[in-house]
Amino acid sequence: MFNREIADLRSGKPIMIFDFKDREGETDLVIPSQFVNTEIIRFFRKQGGGLICTTMKEEIARTLHLPFLDDLYRKFLYQGTRLADASDMKYDKTSSFTVTINHRDTFTGVSDHDRSKTINEFSNFISEMKQLKNDPGVEFSKRFRSPGHVILLIAREGYFSVRKGHTELSTYMVEKAGLIPSATIVETLSDSGKSMSRDEAMEFARSNKLNFIDGSDIVSEWLEDESNGIGSIRYNTPGAYTLSQGIKKIG
Amino acid sequence: MFNREIADLRSGKPIMIFDFKDREGETDLVIPSQFVNTEIIRFFRKQGGGLICTTMKEEIARTLHLPFLDDLYRKFLYQGTRLADASDMKYDKTSSFTVTINHRDTFTGVSDHDRSKTINEFSNFISEMKQLKNDPGVEFSKRFRSPGHVILLIAREGYFSVRKGHTELSTYMVEKAGLIPSATIVETLSDSGKSMSRDEAMEFARSNKLNFIDGSDIVSEWLEDESNGIGSIRYNTPGAYTLSQGIKKIG
Repeated sequence: MFNREIADLRSGKPIMIFDFKDREGETDLVIPSQFVNTEIIRFFRKQGGGLICTTMKEEIARTLHLPFLDDLYRKFLYQGTRLADASDMKYDKTSSFTVTINHRDTFTGVSDHDRSKTINEFSNFISEMKQLKNDPGVEFSKRFRSPGHVILLIAREGYFSVRKGHTELSTYMVEKAGLIPSATIVETLSDSGKSMSRDEAMEFARSNKLNFIDGSDIVSEWLEDESNGIGSIRYNTPGAYTLSQGIKKIG
Repeated sequence: MFNREIADLRSGKPIMIFDFKDREGETDLVIPSQFVNTEIIRFFRKQGGGLICTTMKEEIARTLHLPFLDDLYRKFLYQGTRLADASDMKYDKTSSFTVTINHRDTFTGVSDHDRSKTINEFSNFISEMKQLKNDPGVEFSKRFRSPGHVILLIAREGYFSVRKGHTELSTYMVEKAGLIPSATIVETLSDSGKSMSRDEAMEFARSNKLNFIDGSDIVSEWLEDESNGIGSIRYNTPGAYTLSQGIKKIG
């Protein structure tokens, strides 16, 4: 399954992923972070229009000590428990947001060139992490500055057993393609003032010759991989791990 | 000075502000947050292309206990001091970023409708703050959720005596127009992969019939207001205040 889409991802061509009718009901443009370039950023901002975000797997975030912002805010902001309370959120109960970054060799960080550079370097960094002699968290802070203009997201460990957002859907697909497991994604917005409907997004996909996948098919594929034990994806420590250890212990 | 631009702002028409040749060299689209609507968000994301951000004055942030992210990260993130170190930043030494928010009555938060709603409600909130019987920080956390899709910025107290970024330039202009002191801004990006040059931005302004101002003229006007003691803007506590008290005390 997904032979065309996997081939697209491997060749650096974006695909589109709709999540679920009973979730956001949004379709994101998705590309492996290693293939982002200035044209992709321009296409994503002009034709997508949402927030351009770059994902990583939770195990990477943990190694880098990058927390979910929900956790950080709950712990350290005034009224943080209430402010980060997402129990009234209409499509999920958790967000994927972690910090924003700029690569230190960018200028303001926001131009297509600068965002592309930050995202490529982040992807490179992930692929090099295991070879690093230094603490990856230290090395990360030497190469990147935060806050910045590229929004990082963390795909929950255990993928769809934990969360079924675009963060997980896109990261899983990129990992399944055997690429550096980081996707760069953007929500597709409509001129109506709403997000593109599934029909609008499919029409957009047709007119831009992009392949389109439903999140439900991705989850089915994942379930099959899991049950066969032949999935490309292995988890070291499944379970409801939260990244609170990413936050500095003080006091 | 700025009669046309003040009239534009009061009528809900965007203006363009270039900062400085020796700073970012970027031009932002600027509109008072109270006049943001879905068409404005669409125009900003399609024609601007950078990050759509909403500003507040530092005294508002302090009342709401919203910290500068630099401070928050330095204190609480692993390697935070190094990660938030901006001494190698090429155009300034501090950023304006604070938390991102969604109004609680939005859906995913990212559509033109949802971002417009969040920004309008934030502006309303600022104008109502003084009448609130409850702690504004508590009320804020009841109306807004964080993290979200609208990026908030804090204009440094003391304006250009402290920082000369688009955050300060735009907030000053909106306050000078006698409006709720919150601007919504976006960087204008070029198809070249860079930010628009001053010439490109002036051409964009001409073709969109928008007025264009140089940051240096805004700073001159501010200096004149200050020296005459007739400026519309008064500071309660000038000086290099940082928002570290916005961060919850723990331990």
